[in-house]
Amino acid sequence: MNKLAIISLNRIEIRDSFWDRYIGLVREIIIPYQWDILNDKLEDVETSHCIQNFKIAAKREDGEFYGAVFQDSDLAKWIEAVAFSLAASPDPELENRVDEVIDLIADAQDKDGYLNTYYTIKEPGKRFQNLMEGHELYCAGHFMEAAVAYYRATGKDKLVHIMKNFADLICEEFGVDKNSRGYPGHQEVEIGLYKLFEVTGEVRYLEQAKMFLDRRGDRPNYFLEERERPDFKQIFDEFKNYDIAYSQSHLPVREQKTAEGHAVRAGYMYCAMADIAAAYDDMELLEACEKLWDNMVYKRMYITGSVGSSGILERFTTDYDLPNNSNYSETCASIALALFGRRMAQITRDAKFYDIVEKALYNTVLAGIAMDGRSFFYVNPLEVWPENCIPRTSKEHVKPVRQSWYGVACCPPNIARTLASLGEYIYLADQDAIWVNLFISSSVRTVFKGKEVELEMSTRFPYDGQVTVSVNSQTAVRGTIYIRIPEYVKEYTVHMNGVAMEAKAGEDGYLALETELKSTIITLFFGLKPRIVRANPLVKEDVGKVAVMKGPLVYCMEEVDNEPNLPAYFLDPGAGLSEYYEESLLGGTSVIRCCGKKIKSDGWDKEALYTEMKPEFEDKELTLIPYPYWGNRKTGEMLVWIKELF
Amino acid sequence: MNKLAIISLNRIEIRDSFWDRYIGLVREIIIPYQWDILNDKLEDVETSHCIQNFKIAAKREDGEFYGAVFQDSDLAKWIEAVAFSLAASPDPELENRVDEVIDLIADAQDKDGYLNTYYTIKEPGKRFQNLMEGHELYCAGHFMEAAVAYYRATGKDKLVHIMKNFADLICEEFGVDKNSRGYPGHQEVEIGLYKLFEVTGEVRYLEQAKMFLDRRGDRPNYFLEERERPDFKQIFDEFKNYDIAYSQSHLPVREQKTAEGHAVRAGYMYCAMADIAAAYDDMELLEACEKLWDNMVYKRMYITGSVGSSGILERFTTDYDLPNNSNYSETCASIALALFGRRMAQITRDAKFYDIVEKALYNTVLAGIAMDGRSFFYVNPLEVWPENCIPRTSKEHVKPVRQSWYGVACCPPNIARTLASLGEYIYLADQDAIWVNLFISSSVRTVFKGKEVELEMSTRFPYDGQVTVSVNSQTAVRGTIYIRIPEYVKEYTVHMNGVAMEAKAGEDGYLALETELKSTIITLFFGLKPRIVRANPLVKEDVGKVAVMKGPLVYCMEEVDNEPNLPAYFLDPGAGLSEYYEESLLGGTSVIRCCGKKIKSDGWDKEALYTEMKPEFEDKELTLIPYPYWGNRKTGEMLVWIKELF
Repeated sequence: MNKLAIISLNRIEIRDSFWDRYIGLVREIIIPYQWDILNDKLEDVETSHCIQNFKIAAKREDGEFYGAVFQDSDLAKWIEAVAFSLAASPDPELENRVDEVIDLIADAQDKDGYLNTYYTIKEPGKRFQNLMEGHELYCAGHFMEAAVAYYRATGKDKLVHIMKNFADLICEEFGVDKNSRGYPGHQEVEIGLYKLFEVTGEVRYLEQAKMFLDRRGDRPNYFLEERERPDFKQIFDEFKNYDIAYSQSHLPVREQKTAEGHAVRAGYMYCAMADIAAAYDDMELLEACEKLWDNMVYKRMYITGSVGSSGILERFTTDYDLPNNSNYSETCASIALALFGRRMAQITRDAKFYDIVEKALYNTVLAGIAMDGRSFFYVNPLEVWPENCIPRTSKEHVKPVRQSWYGVACCPPNIARTLASLGEYIYLADQDAIWVNLFISSSVRTVFKGKEVELEMSTRFPYDGQVTVSVNSQTAVRGTIYIRIPEYVKEYTVHMNGVAMEAKAGEDGYLALETELKSTIITLFFGLKPRIVRANPLVKEDVGKVAVMKGPLVYCMEEVDNEPNLPAYFLDPGAGLSEYYEESLLGGTSVIRCCGKKIKSDGWDKEALYTEMKPEFEDKELTLIPYPYWGNRKTGEMLVWIKELF
Repeated sequence: MNKLAIISLNRIEIRDSFWDRYIGLVREIIIPYQWDILNDKLEDVETSHCIQNFKIAAKREDGEFYGAVFQDSDLAKWIEAVAFSLAASPDPELENRVDEVIDLIADAQDKDGYLNTYYTIKEPGKRFQNLMEGHELYCAGHFMEAAVAYYRATGKDKLVHIMKNFADLICEEFGVDKNSRGYPGHQEVEIGLYKLFEVTGEVRYLEQAKMFLDRRGDRPNYFLEERERPDFKQIFDEFKNYDIAYSQSHLPVREQKTAEGHAVRAGYMYCAMADIAAAYDDMELLEACEKLWDNMVYKRMYITGSVGSSGILERFTTDYDLPNNSNYSETCASIALALFGRRMAQITRDAKFYDIVEKALYNTVLAGIAMDGRSFFYVNPLEVWPENCIPRTSKEHVKPVRQSWYGVACCPPNIARTLASLGEYIYLADQDAIWVNLFISSSVRTVFKGKEVELEMSTRFPYDGQVTVSVNSQTAVRGTIYIRIPEYVKEYTVHMNGVAMEAKAGEDGYLALETELKSTIITLFFGLKPRIVRANPLVKEDVGKVAVMKGPLVYCMEEVDNEPNLPAYFLDPGAGLSEYYEESLLGGTSVIRCCGKKIKSDGWDKEALYTEMKPEFEDKELTLIPYPYWGNRKTGEMLVWIKELF
């Protein structure tokens, strides 16, 4: 399949009023902060011991392994985020630090290529014997991704060589020769192997990734057999009663039609399935990807682009089961969804995937990080009642306040790498065309039929619907600019070099402007107004309710702007929505106000809990802010789905 | 405190169109069925091994202990249910079987009075060393209750003697002499000791019960110290991270103001607090009871009279947190609530407690048992979506279909003893007065100032509001008939011997009819109509919704009578509620119909999950049946709180 290409980050520069504050946090706050954590330099943060584990494995220091079985992956994610950041903005000191840590990784690697400090220090001789829980292949995958990102950013290939050594060992251990049936308990190495194949051209890495996918859904199930071995040692208590659907091992991947199990595992697997489908022209696999995508986004996804609605086990449940106050909706699962959607867009060239990628990035991924970059949400509820989020209940996992760096720090570094690689989501390219998928002020250099073309996008999206794309080419070249028309844009106008033109998006959701490019200015006016959105009435939790959106942004009510007991509010959709840009609020954001009513609770305090009293309404103005910004002020209630006043 | 007396069951005869079918089940189905289970005679039921454990402890047979640490309590509850049943309807064969099993219990008892087959067989020498989890005192309490019930029903005191021996040992072990600080991890022995004191007059049993209560809330906490002992052996995995509030040990009982922790433990403790408050004229303790009662019923109780809203740990959470589809609301917790309420009514002579007792009995307790007596609900949700109640989610505990007898069979025998002792809830008595608390056709013999008085109540309550109470006395005697006027009765008329009379309930909620009794007929007409009820708007899950009730009965929608997707229905309260009695439905019940609308989901299947489509309503008739009867037909959705059409 002729996939669209990602344009490398060092050819993209983002300068965007909406995103800059977040991207800046990665470089200024998160990367240095995480480095301190990896080195245990922060007192009030749970001990990481990550670098220390590498030093012990490298025999530079003595000591014991400390941390989770997947502790190494924190370093991999840090390197990947740094690599993406370096690609966009070089920083020799930071690069030097990475080089040093890569030297350390090389020293920590076993002679045969094996790399995992938990097993090297703590359980030598036990490698690859607990694939269900061991996370060695998961960590390997993250280091492969980091290696490729660092190579692409800097041209330095030492980490690629380290990971090639490990990949070779993995191919040997899990390849056809050894008659192996194993595959990872947490998908990720498939993505890493594919990327390693992309930069090295080593086909056996591709083959190994495919093999891992093809083995899933085996009968008898590999993990259930593995745990029966006499020397099997359980790592996680909660896996005692293991459900093979948790790791999507319940069916061969090609036969999976519904999104099941742990949402992050699922998302990473779907990414790998898309990679392999494209590489092998495997239509059956691509169809499975499409079915899984449809099931997710049509039946199991929140309006905020989050997935995994069960608070227990961070997993998918059943169609239309989308509770708002007890869901998990892990930030990492939305990142996985965005990664999967981008791959599907690369393969199918259909803009519909980007409607979801955009939703996930603008809402859940951003909500995952505080505006100061120092605290994070794992869990992304759509309704919060802080006093009620208490331990030992079904809301134990719901946090009304972002937490500082946690022990299992998957989400913070995952957010960091996503923000640092945002450029990779904006554009896609073919040899004589470029696809504009997200509306983020930026410039990009690409090549049309061997000729350098520069494109500059300027917009105040999502608050304003004007998007200007200027194309500059040294020499005139014929090419096509594809501009995604989002599903929520019902009206738009297009001007080319100041002249209004009749242009309509095709069935693929893109406006295709094929033209002689030299110095071309395309101006789009999207009719972007706040709008009322409703869920399919089969979503029991949302029927009779509305959400407010503008562009991809979901808005929510917070107690600080309204009165307590948000579920007692009713929004009157007929009264219209007014948007105000408030410069001083949350670093500058738009606020949406609308009219409605609220059921009064005055006088009830002396009454029984249940009476025949009629509800008394009072007129109220409702104030909403963008969902990603919730929880950045006073702790209080938050609500996305508001009752509709009929 | 001069408490009202319970009238003994052998002086009460119930013949009631609403209750008979359930009471009959106890005798005909549950008692023989449970006997077979205790003896492992049923193949498709989880092994009980209960009688076998006693045989092994009695050295009549060889073998190992099998079952939970509290397995013995199943036998105690069976004996208590049988005793209540025998009091109402003698059955020599059944009585004989109990006598034999009491002989077995005597043989299983250690020489020093200790009685617990788990510790005797499996952990000899470990008795009373794990009070947090060991349940020895819990089982003892149930055997004490059984002993007293059997003595009251039959006059036979062998089991009372057995339990006196054990009670003496408990007093010695936990009394003042030994400087003990221990108290039970699951309250129940306090109730048992109090009852044993009632029939034996042994004041030290009363004192021991008080001591157990007084110790709770100690600092440092006894259980947390106990578990630090080197030889401590954890029994339950889920108690590893023990929260002392779980067993209400977080504060001295007199300082507790909110209902916390495991709801059944809490309820049994509140019962004991009421017993002790009355016995010692302890106003401080009674005030604590009143505060805890108010917190429960004003802030933490479902409209169905159930408590313990957390699906995890079967516990109380925070004020107004009453989720409808993921709650626990254990049947046993409603039984405990009824037991507590009855005690409070005995002490305070205030009818308000009976409003709750009645709610619990008519709704949650009855819902706990299928109409054929063969399957049971532990968990009592107010909204059920069967396809979504799946393992490994926060609805794992919610069962859309009643289960047959389970391993931890606390609820089925608890329902059995409650139904078998229903008479004890109907009337209360003083030396020259009788209180009519529930409206259940029955006759009762009581004594007014030494003179035998017979009272007969006849009604078709709760479907019909007419209640006739006929009093007959051989010789004329002056006395008072107190008739409870439920909170939901806003209008009523009273006739005495056919003559209408002006009569009003006092502040205590009772209509007091003081008269010369000889042959007196009192007829009440309660204006009982179906009614719309709303929750305090601070109950976030119910704001904007209504429930339908008639008398104490809550009504609910079931999918079998309506269309799927019940949350899409809106009830129009202005359109009125019509009640129909359907002879052939569910053994004869009233059905309530009302008008409303439903949001259509037609056409949505081809749409995205979230769109700007406006909801389309269609007119619908809503059909509701009594909540206790739900789940007796086809598996499907069920809903109590329905959206209100404003």
